[in-house]
Amino acid sequence: MPHKIVIAPDSFKGTMSSIEVCDIIKTAIQHINPSAEIITIPIADGGEGTVDCFLSRGGGKEVHVEVNNPFFEKMESRYAVINDNRTAIIEMAACAGLPLAENRQNPAVTTTFGVGELIKHAISTGVRELVIGLGGSCTNDAGCGCAAALGVTFYNRDGKSFVPTGATLQDICTIDAKSRLPELEHCSLRIMCDIDNPLHGKTGAAYIFGPQKGADEKMVMLLDNQLKAFDKKIQEHFQLNLQEQPGAGAAGGMGGGLLALLGGKLEMGIETVLDVVGFNQIIEGADLIITGEGRLDDQSLRGKVVVGVAKRAKIKKVPVIAIVGDVGLDDEKIYETGVTAVFSINRVAAAFQEARLRCRSDLRQTIHDIMRLIDIFGYGNA
Amino acid sequence: MPHKIVIAPDSFKGTMSSIEVCDIIKTAIQHINPSAEIITIPIADGGEGTVDCFLSRGGGKEVHVEVNNPFFEKMESRYAVINDNRTAIIEMAACAGLPLAENRQNPAVTTTFGVGELIKHAISTGVRELVIGLGGSCTNDAGCGCAAALGVTFYNRDGKSFVPTGATLQDICTIDAKSRLPELEHCSLRIMCDIDNPLHGKTGAAYIFGPQKGADEKMVMLLDNQLKAFDKKIQEHFQLNLQEQPGAGAAGGMGGGLLALLGGKLEMGIETVLDVVGFNQIIEGADLIITGEGRLDDQSLRGKVVVGVAKRAKIKKVPVIAIVGDVGLDDEKIYETGVTAVFSINRVAAAFQEARLRCRSDLRQTIHDIMRLIDIFGYGNA
Repeated sequence: MPHKIVIAPDSFKGTMSSIEVCDIIKTAIQHINPSAEIITIPIADGGEGTVDCFLSRGGGKEVHVEVNNPFFEKMESRYAVINDNRTAIIEMAACAGLPLAENRQNPAVTTTFGVGELIKHAISTGVRELVIGLGGSCTNDAGCGCAAALGVTFYNRDGKSFVPTGATLQDICTIDAKSRLPELEHCSLRIMCDIDNPLHGKTGAAYIFGPQKGADEKMVMLLDNQLKAFDKKIQEHFQLNLQEQPGAGAAGGMGGGLLALLGGKLEMGIETVLDVVGFNQIIEGADLIITGEGRLDDQSLRGKVVVGVAKRAKIKKVPVIAIVGDVGLDDEKIYETGVTAVFSINRVAAAFQEARLRCRSDLRQTIHDIMRLIDIFGYGNA
Repeated sequence: MPHKIVIAPDSFKGTMSSIEVCDIIKTAIQHINPSAEIITIPIADGGEGTVDCFLSRGGGKEVHVEVNNPFFEKMESRYAVINDNRTAIIEMAACAGLPLAENRQNPAVTTTFGVGELIKHAISTGVRELVIGLGGSCTNDAGCGCAAALGVTFYNRDGKSFVPTGATLQDICTIDAKSRLPELEHCSLRIMCDIDNPLHGKTGAAYIFGPQKGADEKMVMLLDNQLKAFDKKIQEHFQLNLQEQPGAGAAGGMGGGLLALLGGKLEMGIETVLDVVGFNQIIEGADLIITGEGRLDDQSLRGKVVVGVAKRAKIKKVPVIAIVGDVGLDDEKIYETGVTAVFSINRVAAAFQEARLRCRSDLRQTIHDIMRLIDIFGYGNA
């Protein structure tokens, strides 16, 4: 009977995408064990590449749509539908990503309107499960653009409707959420969001992520004040305290905005991916799961990929091998997460600058050795 | 049934002795698998520490003897007897080692006489199997001192007997080997010698190892000429061409001298150790062998520890895991040697200067992970 092996790694930050890690591990396993049944699940974090991660598994399709770019100009964007057209995977970076701002980065004026258009298009085709990946944004509009595209109406004190951006959030006087697309009531909106920054303040969206979007010190303060005003307005309208919501500060406040305005659920990306691909069913009867990430450390314990995978594997009693660049945790702590064994891909003592050049070959050879070990000792107890 | 695991590693050059490597691996295995039957065989290379390696296994005893030091002065030295007093382990460094020369390094005048006295003492107690570890010498006397202590007589042109040293080898006119200790006929003399330098010439004992023993350029030339003269004399007396003998240049020509004058056999250290401890019997019924060395590379393929262990394990069909600092070989080449799988202890991308500080913890944790993997997949097929 061929062995069933599931590969579900994160990217190795700074070296390999999760799709590439999957490919290398798969080929290396087949080299030692050609008859193995191998299922690959490259893990996405919600940022750029999330759509490709889901598409790489096959069975999904790409949908191209004309939407607004961050500057309210037309652009062709795309999303993916998977699970027999039941689930749409939308990454906000596809029409509000930092690379799209190029030489005109300005989080005061950029919008997430296009993201709302992608969602709307997906809903129009009958999709009711929507996965929205946050991350890599050039915006700071608290997701108001996205909400506006889906029918939420924002009025200023003159009673005029408008689409708020980073610098005009405090112009919001009233919000009409009832005007939003009625189908949204029947949709699940899962927001992939791996950070837990609050909406505003010194650790909020503007202070932490504003500068990389082109905001200078003065603009950071402005954006932060706008987010504070938005927070207040949301409390007024929805009796919801966004500032208490970890992750509300993700993607220029879009985490908080989608939560309040569209009823989205903020989730750790790993949980979303594993749910959406049906991980619990996939690992049923598996002999082995291989996961991994660039560095396994204390941060990894807070809902990152390896721990997320291990937690589910433990319930199904499937052994988990974690393959990592650096091991920055004591082994006992790793085992507690459900990981059976962890192996670093480093095969020589070399600093990162050198190690990164050989990481692909090191990963391949490490998998060869692990598979040979398992092969000779058998899958007996597993 | 408890699993039987044999640990037989080399030292990790520059970081851990083979005894220390054995201890760490043993403790790490017991942490995961407390009921395992563990046999440790720290591998010695013949140099300083060889006696301790054999003693560390238990069951042997230390013998202290007063002998001559490199300067013909009395000192207390020691050797080990193992295998129910049948085998003596003698390291030449114990009375002719470089540290004993301290501030008066001078390979022109130093002697290996004490080594012969250790051998003589062992023979007097009934020992007939002698293992002589070469390496770390301060001498260049081609082992003449050692031979003299065992009764070989060297005469100069005046017919006067003397004990030749590095600078007086060419004074040897005739050699009387018949005068040597008669028990030597019934002894096996295994010489541990891991280098294959010839007796003299640019890659010989004087040129390659003279400088580290304190010889300047002029003295190197002198010593080399003396070895040439010795070679000629040996040819005259024994019809033996030492220069054709790889390893004759080991330990200031002692490799060649013991071969010609005492009938010793030059062997790769790993083969000697494995023979003497009865490795083939020990691994009978073993579930796993763990070996290792600081760096596994092309040089390792030429009779070093990992390959020596793997070769024997292959015949008995026992799986071999090699634990190494650096992997400097393609995996296919490693597998050909009989190694099942190789793992590096490096758990982060760090240069050697940093890696060496964490090598003990890295080794321990790597073993934990390997043992957990084997435990969960079972010893079924092994």
